[in-house]
Amino acid sequence: MNKQQLVSAIRNKRSYLCVGLDTDIEKIPAHLHASPNAVLEFNKAIIDATKDYCVSYKINTAFYEAMGVKGWDIIEQTLHYIPETHFTIADAKRGDIGNTSAQYAKTFFETFPFDAVTVAPYMGEDSVRPFLEYENKVTIVLGLTSNKGASDFELQPAGGEHLYEKVLRTVSAWGTPHNLMFVVGATQASALENVRKIVPDNFLLVPGVGAQGGSLQEVSQYGLNSEAGLLVNASRAVIYAGSGEDFVVKAAEAARQYRDEMATYLQ
Amino acid sequence: MNKQQLVSAIRNKRSYLCVGLDTDIEKIPAHLHASPNAVLEFNKAIIDATKDYCVSYKINTAFYEAMGVKGWDIIEQTLHYIPETHFTIADAKRGDIGNTSAQYAKTFFETFPFDAVTVAPYMGEDSVRPFLEYENKVTIVLGLTSNKGASDFELQPAGGEHLYEKVLRTVSAWGTPHNLMFVVGATQASALENVRKIVPDNFLLVPGVGAQGGSLQEVSQYGLNSEAGLLVNASRAVIYAGSGEDFVVKAAEAARQYRDEMATYLQ
Repeated sequence: MNKQQLVSAIRNKRSYLCVGLDTDIEKIPAHLHASPNAVLEFNKAIIDATKDYCVSYKINTAFYEAMGVKGWDIIEQTLHYIPETHFTIADAKRGDIGNTSAQYAKTFFETFPFDAVTVAPYMGEDSVRPFLEYENKVTIVLGLTSNKGASDFELQPAGGEHLYEKVLRTVSAWGTPHNLMFVVGATQASALENVRKIVPDNFLLVPGVGAQGGSLQEVSQYGLNSEAGLLVNASRAVIYAGSGEDFVVKAAEAARQYRDEMATYLQ
Repeated sequence: MNKQQLVSAIRNKRSYLCVGLDTDIEKIPAHLHASPNAVLEFNKAIIDATKDYCVSYKINTAFYEAMGVKGWDIIEQTLHYIPETHFTIADAKRGDIGNTSAQYAKTFFETFPFDAVTVAPYMGEDSVRPFLEYENKVTIVLGLTSNKGASDFELQPAGGEHLYEKVLRTVSAWGTPHNLMFVVGATQASALENVRKIVPDNFLLVPGVGAQGGSLQEVSQYGLNSEAGLLVNASRAVIYAGSGEDFVVKAAEAARQYRDEMATYLQ
């Protein structure tokens, strides 16, 4: 699925919800542990429960890598299970010198055929360029993140602006709104108005709503543009909404609530 | 192996060479392709050929991830094959919000028990902290990298200094020279004198000698400290020194040449 198809999906479903599959074996319901592949079973159940209310799934690679070789098998099978009607994101935050970034791009666009991958900007253009060279794939570069550490560098002065502003301004010239999105944390909602001045047309992937405390109302107020232009991610607030045998019902309910609220902002 | 044992190994071997296993299936000698696991066979042969001349091996995860699930199996087996007398580095350049970085730390310090892992600084302290909490493990944070893109952000002004200087200064307060090293590219050798003023005691992992054009002589002149304090990485210049059936001999020869030159600087 490319960006234009994502825009259509958002219009049809009246939702810009991305469900984050940050699946931690230690946090999934106890009754699933009897399964030989509990994490995959959990992911499939969450996808079945939420697919009507979201337009995207984001797989946080860290949680799977920590399981070793088996974790990558689960990434592969989970990706395969996600309906083609949904925009798939590898939240991998990769970035390295050109020839190495080309390998990462191959990993997440070919070997594991995601629609998009998150990329760290620190190492500059040649670390991002190999991702942008894939047609109909989307590169999502870190702008202003949702964590406390954002104040260490991203929010520090950098030649008359904040570093994250320089990053948005510089990186946005390397691609187009069709192949380039940015991560902007919901916990920095007040910055979104400013972000929209720098990148009015790019989609923003917004983590931090829910468990991290960001407000969906504020994010939507400042972040929406004429194409929607937002993918709001909720991970823990949806996938761990329930902790018992009712986890599927609770996850569906949490996702539906996000969708219902989003529908009101998409008037 | 911890940092103190690395210092001893450097003294004993009179070498601060790290061999980078950036193994690309398309670049290994044709005769190996008959093997059912050509990349692993290549890695084992390179390790056997070079282990007397180097003190460390660095596995560039990108090249293995691009192979899919099988690639992680090769990482595991290659890591297991490296002698315990060598310092092992996962060149993974990870970094995310705290709870996700904790998963990456688990990945590279427990699931795959490397001695060290490379980490990107953009997201700030809570993205680095989970790595530093492991005792006797080493976190190697990106400072000034060897690629052209270093000029986009790392070498830009950031409050009266360059961004990479701010990163070195800020991050060095989060750890100690025992658990924290920095990546500083050899193609920026002239900056090493300055780097040493900011972080006199931390080890520097220096890529970019050889194929990327950096000078070992300059790097050593400006980078060595009383503990050596340098790990100079060579990847393509060693592992692809030969392209035929003599690749083992050529790789050993290239590694020995680096060691011989390093020994003269360690007087």
